[in-house]
Amino acid sequence: MVIVIQCADKVGLVATIAGLLQGQNLNIVSMREHVDAIQNRFFARIEISKPVDANTLENQLKAALPEDAQVIVNPNPVKRIIVLATKEYHCLSDILIRNHFNTLGAEVLCVIANHATLQDICQRFDMPFHLISHEGITKEAFEAELDQLMQQYQVDYIVLAKFMRILSPSLVEKYPLKIINIHHSFLPAFIGANPYRQAYERGVKLIGATAHFVTNQLDEGPIIAQQIIPVNHSFTSKDMVKAGKEIETSVLANALQLVFDDKVLVYQNKTVVFE
Amino acid sequence: MVIVIQCADKVGLVATIAGLLQGQNLNIVSMREHVDAIQNRFFARIEISKPVDANTLENQLKAALPEDAQVIVNPNPVKRIIVLATKEYHCLSDILIRNHFNTLGAEVLCVIANHATLQDICQRFDMPFHLISHEGITKEAFEAELDQLMQQYQVDYIVLAKFMRILSPSLVEKYPLKIINIHHSFLPAFIGANPYRQAYERGVKLIGATAHFVTNQLDEGPIIAQQIIPVNHSFTSKDMVKAGKEIETSVLANALQLVFDDKVLVYQNKTVVFE
Amino acid sequence: MVIVIQCADKVGLVATIAGLLQGQNLNIVSMREHVDAIQNRFFARIEISKPVDANTLENQLKAALPEDAQVIVNPNPVKRIIVLATKEYHCLSDILIRNHFNTLGAEVLCVIANHATLQDICQRFDMPFHLISHEGITKEAFEAELDQLMQQYQVDYIVLAKFMRILSPSLVEKYPLKIINIHHSFLPAFIGANPYRQAYERGVKLIGATAHFVTNQLDEGPIIAQQIIPVNHSFTSKDMVKAGKEIETSVLANALQLVFDDKVLVYQNKTVVFE
Amino acid sequence: MVIVIQCADKVGLVATIAGLLQGQNLNIVSMREHVDAIQNRFFARIEISKPVDANTLENQLKAALPEDAQVIVNPNPVKRIIVLATKEYHCLSDILIRNHFNTLGAEVLCVIANHATLQDICQRFDMPFHLISHEGITKEAFEAELDQLMQQYQVDYIVLAKFMRILSPSLVEKYPLKIINIHHSFLPAFIGANPYRQAYERGVKLIGATAHFVTNQLDEGPIIAQQIIPVNHSFTSKDMVKAGKEIETSVLANALQLVFDDKVLVYQNKTVVFE
Repeated sequence: MVIVIQCADKVGLVATIAGLLQGQNLNIVSMREHVDAIQNRFFARIEISKPVDANTLENQLKAALPEDAQVIVNPNPVKRIIVLATKEYHCLSDILIRNHFNTLGAEVLCVIANHATLQDICQRFDMPFHLISHEGITKEAFEAELDQLMQQYQVDYIVLAKFMRILSPSLVEKYPLKIINIHHSFLPAFIGANPYRQAYERGVKLIGATAHFVTNQLDEGPIIAQQIIPVNHSFTSKDMVKAGKEIETSVLANALQLVFDDKVLVYQNKTVVFE
Repeated sequence: MVIVIQCADKVGLVATIAGLLQGQNLNIVSMREHVDAIQNRFFARIEISKPVDANTLENQLKAALPEDAQVIVNPNPVKRIIVLATKEYHCLSDILIRNHFNTLGAEVLCVIANHATLQDICQRFDMPFHLISHEGITKEAFEAELDQLMQQYQVDYIVLAKFMRILSPSLVEKYPLKIINIHHSFLPAFIGANPYRQAYERGVKLIGATAHFVTNQLDEGPIIAQQIIPVNHSFTSKDMVKAGKEIETSVLANALQLVFDDKVLVYQNKTVVFE
Repeated sequence: MVIVIQCADKVGLVATIAGLLQGQNLNIVSMREHVDAIQNRFFARIEISKPVDANTLENQLKAALPEDAQVIVNPNPVKRIIVLATKEYHCLSDILIRNHFNTLGAEVLCVIANHATLQDICQRFDMPFHLISHEGITKEAFEAELDQLMQQYQVDYIVLAKFMRILSPSLVEKYPLKIINIHHSFLPAFIGANPYRQAYERGVKLIGATAHFVTNQLDEGPIIAQQIIPVNHSFTSKDMVKAGKEIETSVLANALQLVFDDKVLVYQNKTVVFE
Repeated sequence: MVIVIQCADKVGLVATIAGLLQGQNLNIVSMREHVDAIQNRFFARIEISKPVDANTLENQLKAALPEDAQVIVNPNPVKRIIVLATKEYHCLSDILIRNHFNTLGAEVLCVIANHATLQDICQRFDMPFHLISHEGITKEAFEAELDQLMQQYQVDYIVLAKFMRILSPSLVEKYPLKIINIHHSFLPAFIGANPYRQAYERGVKLIGATAHFVTNQLDEGPIIAQQIIPVNHSFTSKDMVKAGKEIETSVLANALQLVFDDKVLVYQNKTVVFE
C-alpha cells in the first residue's frame, strides 16, 4: 500500500510518520523522502506491506502533520483514464496495447478524438471511441462538448496522446494536475509549433520529447520525464519526425508509469519523481 | 591522407573524384559522402592510403569539380590552436592533459585568459599563459589586445574553454569558422546567461551542453556536438552546475576531436559531421 | 533505389561503381562505403534517385567488380516476413502495430506460435495465426511442421519475437541470415537462460538487449543492434524483466528497421550497419 | 553530516532512527532508505543539518538498532586515498586534476606505479610518486613492498587507475572493500584480458566500463557504476581502446564521487547506491 505526503518542512516529520506507522505495527517496505530546502517543502512516498483502513490512517497522518499537509493513503492502484488523440497512432497504440494486456497501471475508459482516423484501431481493442470534430464549431462549443463527455466518466487522468488542439485555460482549470501531455521537443527548446522543423533548421545533434502536466501556460507545465535521441546531418525534417515518434512513445509510456505508480508529486510547477 | 570536399551537387561527382584518385592508383580507405538535397550541396571526406603531393591533387580536383568547390587535401594533421579561458578549470585542464600526452590531435600554442586563476595549471604543463584583463579598459581595447596577441600565432582554431566574455562581431569576423565555443546548455534551450539556473527553475529532467562554431549571433553558430545527462528534483542549481561541468568537458573534447580529425564540414549555419 | 554491394577490396572500386552509374546518368543520392582493412573486404550501400532495370544494372555491376562480388540492386522495398512467438506480447504487438499502420518496412505474412496465448491479439489485426504446439511431439517433428508451414510462404526474413524454442542447426541452415532474434541481454554477457536473474545476482547497473542474426552457435550470431538501460539496487529480478521488455521491444524495432532498409551487411559473423 | 546504516530489517527501524534524531532536535535534510526483501536487509543514508558528536550518536544508534547494525556517523568527508597505476595516463590524470582543484572529494596521498612512465605527470602536480617495479622479483616480493608502502599511509581507499597487475588474495584481504578498480569492459562480458579485442572480434555495438570493489574473485567484486558508448563496424580494435579510455575515465570518476560521498553501501557482493 502506498502513502504519498507533502507538507511544509519541519524537524521530526520522518519520526512522526514512521512512529505512527510503527505504532500500528506497519513495516515500511520502501520510503523515499525529499526536502526542497529553498521552498521549505517536505515530500514523501512510503510503501507499507500490510493493508490498513486508508481513511483512518489518512486522518491520523493529517492530524499529526503540519496543517497544510496533503496526504493520500492507498491511491487508486489502477487509475481511470481517458485518452485524447487526433490522427497520429504511435502513442495511442502503445497505450492501447498496454491497456489490453493489463500492464498500463491504468484502465482506459474511452478514447476521444477530433478526427475519425483512429476509430478503427480503437474498435479492434473494443475501446469506446468518441469523435468530437472541431470543424464548423467554435472552440467554446468544441470544448463544451468535450468537457461534457469527460464529465460522464470519473477520471483520475486525461492523457493527451498527440492531441493537436490547445485547450483553453477555463477547461484546463477544471482538471488541475490531471492532464498529461506529450510534447514533441526537449522543452524548453522549441516551444510551440513545428519543433522538428525548428530542430532541423537549427541543425541540432539531439532531439527530444517531454511529458508534462498541462497548465495554462502553453508547454510550461511541470515536467515529468524527458528523453533524447541523437540525430545528424543526414536526417531530413521528416526523418526527425519519424525518430521523434519513437521517443515520444517511449517518454510518454515512462511518464505514465511513474504517474500511475504514484511516484510523481507536484509543487510550484516542478515535479518530485521518486523513481 | 585526408581529402575534404564541398561543392554544388550534380550527377557524377563521386565518379569524377573516385576516377581521378584511381587514375593515380590511390586506394580509397574510407569515404563518407552526403548530399543535402534541399540545399543541393555535396559534401565528402575521403581517406587515401598513400601520401601524394597535396597541392597538385588539390588543383586537379578543383579543375574537375564545379567552380564553387572547396577542396582541402591533406589538412594539417596536427592543428595549431589557442585556448581562451577565464576561471573555470575543467575544460582547460582536460585539453592540457590531452595536449601533454599528444592525444589531442592539436598542439596548444598558448592559453589566454582574462583572469590569473588558471596561470598555475598552465605553468605546470609549461604552457605559455597570457593574462589580458578586461578590467578598467574598454571592450574595444580588450579585444584589440587579444587580437594582436592571437595574430602573433598562426592558428587553425581558437577554443573558448569557458571563456566568459562575449566577442564582438568585428573580432569574430576575423576568424570565420575558426572559433569553437562550449555552451553550458542544450541549445537552443536556455540561450544566454545562467542556463543552469534557468534549467533548475524550469524543473527539467535532463541538462546538456553544446559545442559550436562562433558566429555573430550569440549562441547561434553551427552546432558540432551535443550531449545530455539526466538530473532530477534532488539537484540544486549548484548540483546542476557540477553535473554540467562533466558534460561540458566531455562534449568539448568530443567536438574538438571531430574538428581536428577534419570530420566536420560547415554550410549555411549547419554542420555535416562524418563521425 | 538501393544498391548493396560487398566484395574483396581493391583499388578503384568506388570509381568503377560510380563511373558505371554516371554512365547511365544516375545521380548518387547517398553513398556509404566501408573497407575492413583486416579482412580486405569492401562494403557499400548506394541510393540512386531514378529507377532503372534492376537485373541489367546488377549484371553490369557484377561484370565490373571482383568475381566474388555480391550485388543486390533494388532489393524488395517491403520485405515479406513471418514472426515466431511464444507467450510474451511486447515485441509481437509492437510489430503488429507498425505492420498495421504500414510503417514496419515489411509485410507480416503470418504469426506462428507454440502457445495459443497470442492468438487473440493477432486476430484483432486480422493476422493469420498458426499454432504449432511443441508438446507431446519430438523436436524433429515440431520443427518439421514449422518448416513445412514456413516453406508455404516466400519470406525474406523470419523474426523470433521472444520465441522461446531453440532452433536446430539443420533448420537454421535452411534460412541463412534470414532469421533475426531478440536476446534478452547485452551479449556476450549472460548467454543462455535467465539473463535477468543472472544480472540481478551479479548486481549490474545496466541491463541490455541484443538483436542478432541466428546462426548455429546459440546467441553467437552477427549482432545487429544493442541497447541498454540503467538499473539499480531497488530493482528486483522481476523489475529487471519488466525494464528489459521495454528495451527488447525498442532494440528489435530498431534492428528490423535497419535490416528492412537494407542497411545491414554481414560478413564473417559481424555486421556492417550503414545507419 | 552524513549517517550510514545497515542492519537486519525489522518493523520500526525508520521510526527508531528518526525518533532518536528528533529527540536531539536534528532535522533530516535528506534520507534514502532501501530494504532488500530477499536478504531481509535494511540500508539507510541520512543527512542531518547540524553537527553533533559523532561517537555519541553512533553509540546511541547502535544501542537502538539490531545487534548486527553497522553505523557510521560523520565519515571522513575528505577521504585519504592512494592511487595505483601502470603506464596509461587517462584515469590517473583525471584524478590528479580533480585532486589539485579540490573537487575529488578525497585527498590523494601518493601514487604508486610499477613503471616510471607516469612519474613526470605526478611531479607536475607535486604528487609523491613511488616506483615499485615488478620486474626481476617474485609476485610475493612485489606485493610485500607494495603493502609495506601502503601501510605507511592511513588510507580510506586504494584506487586502481589502470593498474595492470592482479593482486593476490592475501593482499586484497587486508583491504576489504577499500580497493576500487576500473575494468575495461561492461562486466560480466569480457572478463579477463584484452576485452576490447574480444569486443572487436564479437562485433558488439556498445562497449562499456565497470568500476567495482576488488575481491578475491577476478573482476567479480561488487559493481559500483557502469557506462557504455556506442561503437560500430568502422571501429578498429585500436579505436575501441581509444573510445574505451574515455568511458573508463568517466565511469571511474563517477564511481569515486559516489564512494567518497558515502553513497555506496555493500552487502553480499552487491552495492546499494543512493545516487
